[in-house]
Amino acid sequence: MDTDLFEPDHEAYRETARSFVHREVVPNMQRWDEERCVDRETWKKAGRAGLVGLSVPERFGGAGEPDFRYRVVLCEEIARVGASSLQSSFSTNDDIVLGYLLNLATEEQQERWLPGFVTGETVGAIAMSEPAAGSDLRGITTTAVRDGDHWVLNGSKTFITNGILADLIVLVARTDPDAGSKGYSLFVVERDTPGFTRGRKLDKVGLQAQDTAELFFESARVPAANLLGPVGSGLASLMQNLPRERLGIAVAAQSSAEAAFRWTLDYVRERQAFGKAIAEFQSVGFTLAELRTSIEVSRAYLDRCVRAVNAGTLSAVDAAKAKWWATDMQWKVIDAGVQLHGGYGYMKEYPIAQAFMDARIQRIYGGTNEIMKEIISRDLVRNS
Amino acid sequence: MDTDLFEPDHEAYRETARSFVHREVVPNMQRWDEERCVDRETWKKAGRAGLVGLSVPERFGGAGEPDFRYRVVLCEEIARVGASSLQSSFSTNDDIVLGYLLNLATEEQQERWLPGFVTGETVGAIAMSEPAAGSDLRGITTTAVRDGDHWVLNGSKTFITNGILADLIVLVARTDPDAGSKGYSLFVVERDTPGFTRGRKLDKVGLQAQDTAELFFESARVPAANLLGPVGSGLASLMQNLPRERLGIAVAAQSSAEAAFRWTLDYVRERQAFGKAIAEFQSVGFTLAELRTSIEVSRAYLDRCVRAVNAGTLSAVDAAKAKWWATDMQWKVIDAGVQLHGGYGYMKEYPIAQAFMDARIQRIYGGTNEIMKEIISRDLVRNS
Amino acid sequence: MDTDLFEPDHEAYRETARSFVHREVVPNMQRWDEERCVDRETWKKAGRAGLVGLSVPERFGGAGEPDFRYRVVLCEEIARVGASSLQSSFSTNDDIVLGYLLNLATEEQQERWLPGFVTGETVGAIAMSEPAAGSDLRGITTTAVRDGDHWVLNGSKTFITNGILADLIVLVARTDPDAGSKGYSLFVVERDTPGFTRGRKLDKVGLQAQDTAELFFESARVPAANLLGPVGSGLASLMQNLPRERLGIAVAAQSSAEAAFRWTLDYVRERQAFGKAIAEFQSVGFTLAELRTSIEVSRAYLDRCVRAVNAGTLSAVDAAKAKWWATDMQWKVIDAGVQLHGGYGYMKEYPIAQAFMDARIQRIYGGTNEIMKEIISRDLVRNS
Amino acid sequence: MDTDLFEPDHEAYRETARSFVHREVVPNMQRWDEERCVDRETWKKAGRAGLVGLSVPERFGGAGEPDFRYRVVLCEEIARVGASSLQSSFSTNDDIVLGYLLNLATEEQQERWLPGFVTGETVGAIAMSEPAAGSDLRGITTTAVRDGDHWVLNGSKTFITNGILADLIVLVARTDPDAGSKGYSLFVVERDTPGFTRGRKLDKVGLQAQDTAELFFESARVPAANLLGPVGSGLASLMQNLPRERLGIAVAAQSSAEAAFRWTLDYVRERQAFGKAIAEFQSVGFTLAELRTSIEVSRAYLDRCVRAVNAGTLSAVDAAKAKWWATDMQWKVIDAGVQLHGGYGYMKEYPIAQAFMDARIQRIYGGTNEIMKEIISRDLVRNS
Repeated sequence: MDTDLFEPDHEAYRETARSFVHREVVPNMQRWDEERCVDRETWKKAGRAGLVGLSVPERFGGAGEPDFRYRVVLCEEIARVGASSLQSSFSTNDDIVLGYLLNLATEEQQERWLPGFVTGETVGAIAMSEPAAGSDLRGITTTAVRDGDHWVLNGSKTFITNGILADLIVLVARTDPDAGSKGYSLFVVERDTPGFTRGRKLDKVGLQAQDTAELFFESARVPAANLLGPVGSGLASLMQNLPRERLGIAVAAQSSAEAAFRWTLDYVRERQAFGKAIAEFQSVGFTLAELRTSIEVSRAYLDRCVRAVNAGTLSAVDAAKAKWWATDMQWKVIDAGVQLHGGYGYMKEYPIAQAFMDARIQRIYGGTNEIMKEIISRDLVRNS
Repeated sequence: MDTDLFEPDHEAYRETARSFVHREVVPNMQRWDEERCVDRETWKKAGRAGLVGLSVPERFGGAGEPDFRYRVVLCEEIARVGASSLQSSFSTNDDIVLGYLLNLATEEQQERWLPGFVTGETVGAIAMSEPAAGSDLRGITTTAVRDGDHWVLNGSKTFITNGILADLIVLVARTDPDAGSKGYSLFVVERDTPGFTRGRKLDKVGLQAQDTAELFFESARVPAANLLGPVGSGLASLMQNLPRERLGIAVAAQSSAEAAFRWTLDYVRERQAFGKAIAEFQSVGFTLAELRTSIEVSRAYLDRCVRAVNAGTLSAVDAAKAKWWATDMQWKVIDAGVQLHGGYGYMKEYPIAQAFMDARIQRIYGGTNEIMKEIISRDLVRNS
Repeated sequence: MDTDLFEPDHEAYRETARSFVHREVVPNMQRWDEERCVDRETWKKAGRAGLVGLSVPERFGGAGEPDFRYRVVLCEEIARVGASSLQSSFSTNDDIVLGYLLNLATEEQQERWLPGFVTGETVGAIAMSEPAAGSDLRGITTTAVRDGDHWVLNGSKTFITNGILADLIVLVARTDPDAGSKGYSLFVVERDTPGFTRGRKLDKVGLQAQDTAELFFESARVPAANLLGPVGSGLASLMQNLPRERLGIAVAAQSSAEAAFRWTLDYVRERQAFGKAIAEFQSVGFTLAELRTSIEVSRAYLDRCVRAVNAGTLSAVDAAKAKWWATDMQWKVIDAGVQLHGGYGYMKEYPIAQAFMDARIQRIYGGTNEIMKEIISRDLVRNS
Repeated sequence: MDTDLFEPDHEAYRETARSFVHREVVPNMQRWDEERCVDRETWKKAGRAGLVGLSVPERFGGAGEPDFRYRVVLCEEIARVGASSLQSSFSTNDDIVLGYLLNLATEEQQERWLPGFVTGETVGAIAMSEPAAGSDLRGITTTAVRDGDHWVLNGSKTFITNGILADLIVLVARTDPDAGSKGYSLFVVERDTPGFTRGRKLDKVGLQAQDTAELFFESARVPAANLLGPVGSGLASLMQNLPRERLGIAVAAQSSAEAAFRWTLDYVRERQAFGKAIAEFQSVGFTLAELRTSIEVSRAYLDRCVRAVNAGTLSAVDAAKAKWWATDMQWKVIDAGVQLHGGYGYMKEYPIAQAFMDARIQRIYGGTNEIMKEIISRDLVRNS
């Protein structure tokens, strides 16, 4: 069964999105891969087309539109052409960084930072992971120490999406080693902060156009006015924003799976072997049936989650379910899609091959799928 | 995420259903298993409680309530105590046989047959499968030949749910061997039809209280007035009623999985090993998380299907997806539930063991899950 | 690839076994199921045919043949007719109980106990599991306290194979609650021991002819001469005997899977649908190919284990691998076999249906497959 | 259980192999990836070390050693450092091309061609797949027409391993469109054949240092003396050589899985989270246990196949089982290995990430795993 999520306004927005994708994304994707970065011009064009910063309040130039379904529409249109790197860049800004700023920033901070998210002039990033602390956030060792009007940061972050391009980085650091879960605070680190340097662009299996990087902080001085939310509330704020971030990943997985299925179905209906289209072989047909069903079933759950996030009722546990389920489903669809493409599934010029390389990180980032199961299990065992 | 399918009226109905189950089902289940049949008195009590024949029009004594959600409610309440045999009996009447009669029977026929479905005095059955023709309906060999005011039936049917108890059997037979898919017609065979005999109660792996049987027709004479729908429309009528039947199986699977998960969760939180509840072991917790997620995801899809069946828009292809997906999911939940019960999962006194034996047929009847995939695949390859 | 395990002597023994199975097992299986017990006469006939107690030394009437391949042969021949209950009975005697007696019993004890294992007059059992302690052996609470020439036993055991028939039970009890892993000892409890009673035959999902039962000990007085091995060595002795016991289960799984595959292959080559044998459908063919491969691959590993157990080099860790792998494989083969049989797979008269009910315990007893993974994982993480 | 395949001579050869790998492979792998080709110098060094062309008869400079276990040893040592591209290059020469030449070439041809395989001066390739014919060999359209002392070839081949470097290509072409399966013949195409050109190096997901390419034949003139085997025997010859080729892929899969498991085990025992090594988490431990068991079980089967290939008894069907099973197992091990590495599993600098990209083709080339199942299934359904 098809989704019943959208209304006419969303479909109108889809037209805008689709047109942008065909005009600005398709002709540039290969170049971005080679340059291993999406260029700033694209961000600005997306801003002019009204495709980024949609949730920014009108007084800061945005549309003040919190409806997550618009995010789903854009995600679907980008997925249709396989531009996963761009998707992850945009999602970092709109589903993650903006979430923090809208929820936590003071009026003064919002005035400073939000307009750029609407115009596409500001690229954001979120810096949580460290070389020795991934899923285990409490294990981070980057510290922030108050020094007059500044906080002095020391430490390093890694696997940072938009790491090279980012103008504004939401970072978590330890502000009190003795305060347990209240010892962590959030900061906004801006480009040109003294003591802040960027490492190399990380060489990844996929997402070639995504400028994932390491970030280093050596006595980096961040103005006190860049503290985001109260001192000590960092972990709590992270927890609060994770459901939306994880739903973003789940939606990207769903959109990517739907696109990959389409490419595969087209291929197997076209490709001939032993005198007929390979789609006519029963083993191929059964695989298609299984994939298609798994896509539709997952979609029903995600649509329910999207409605919940709009209603403000999506729990961390339900978002965790969406994240692991959808990315697992995506993986199965893409892996089977590669297989059904035969040798061509291994050739980079085919979108299924790109999707294969891009998708593998989905089960890992945003909290590994194992961490998701841990979250769900803890809830079941203790609360049910 | 929990279902959002129900409204207050459904919850009121649930109270009725739950009370019936505790009063009439729980104390009798073991006896039914031993007698390998649900007794007639139970059907009549269900009739008095307003739990069967809900969709029968008011002029025939029913509630005229076509909302499938009431069926879901009853199914859930029966599943909660593991009375799968009763569920399959009731479902045969309300989701299958009544569907045929409401869609195809003439006013005169409805007047004759429908009231008994409301009072519980009429037990119905549907006779499609034959010893040499299961999934392949066109392969049936039971024939019906017109002879004056009667049709003369010859052949045999097998795997007939409610086979022993049934008062009214909707049967498909070949009426014209040369007419291809238009050579099949439906008949209502009533108890005491001359030439109609019942075989032994089949000895099954599970569903002990379900009186599945073989039926034999040796020049059985069925009045012409018992022809259901036009001559030659049998296959088409079957196709039309299958979506609702298959959704019924899917809903039973979902309800059973939800109940089995509950039993299992309770068990692993109680049972101790190596000094703690076994639910505290990470491998157990991950299994619980996976099962719980798969249950909720499947539920979202089924809820979508239930709304579609109510709206009259559930396609055969989407019902096929629901059937194979939900019964597969049910199986994984129950199999894992047995495993988590350890040795007790193998002891019949535990409901999980009963569910294990009962559930295995779900992936087979109503069209095997392989046939479901064939239906979906054909649609994808030819129509998408 | 086929097994290369056997030599001419084994094939000669196979003839004896096959003849016994056709003469004594096939005609009686249904009766055993109804009586829920194999009769003693069968044990004695097996003794006369030289099929039990093979490893008992010649001085006690046995063949003194430790070659495990003979056990494999008998297991295969019993599996071929689906007599799983008999298999588990025989295996308990020959692979488990005899192992303890041969390794631990004194010359005097052997003289008393071994001859009956050769003649089939003695049925043995091993009593480890308790209602509140399954996989967690250290959690057992049955105690044995020395009182003059006797040990006084208190406690209860459950899930005891051969529980009703057993003449001689190897039992583990706590002899010193303060001695940690050295606080457990083994005893031989004989029929007619005062204070020893048997509970009801447990009502199981399958293995109907297997008289699994609970055992109760209320100040049961066991002669001091029935202590098996040194006081305090119980756990160590159990650990030492587990590899052979678990390999026995693995071999039973393999034999059962091979038989189930044969029944299934025969069925799908015979059964027609849509105008051809269902084996001709590609989806069926692929399933057959997958099952067949998994059977042969597993066999190669088990053959390696059998050679190792003969050489005395099979480690507990490798036996754990064999146990979980083979029983999982068996399960997949049988579950798929049921599915390929369609409705007939659910009818008890078909051997695949019996195998389905019998096999489910294999992943649970002898240590659940999860415990096997725990054993393997601990070895990997600590020792590799 | 560990393999018991090797004898002291193989272990001596392993020392040579390991030393070569550390001296010549490890320092050059990154460069080969960048140049997307292994250099010729490496081939010659391998020749000097006695690592290629082992099976070439002594009269042509080789060791005349047909024992496949030496091939396994080299494969293992290359896999240990993750040099999959080199492995596939060497395997193409030694397991495939040499097979054809040793079985089919005349004495005169062997004299011309074999010495170069020993010195590493000749790089071979096998050209079967075409853009429109992969698994379906009968669908190839490249033709060879006799013209005096030459055969004139027209058509194109794709996915050719060693395609750019190859000096000698064994190619299959249609020589008689009306002769059914007897209408195909084999030819040796040598470098500098007029009318033969090479296309671009194909841009693949992995195997970066493998110069896979397309080959074009436009009235390419091949001397009649380069016909390999009798005219019309091409398909039969291919069928005969496939078992060894497929076993080569299976062995590469096994070796790669064993290496990937080692990297992963080392990683999870080192990496800390939540205060302990992640290997200490039960969910990680269970995954390790499952992978390790699947590796050992697969190994037992492959060792049996290696012994059979040495004995000349490995059937096409058993080789098909080995190919699909081992490559599937490899994939599960590597995919889980990536997951257990977390974010680092997606970074190209980690060998597990490289293995992930390299391994995906294994389930596709040499005949897709689906074709393997087709082969097995046909044998089961028709011959068992």
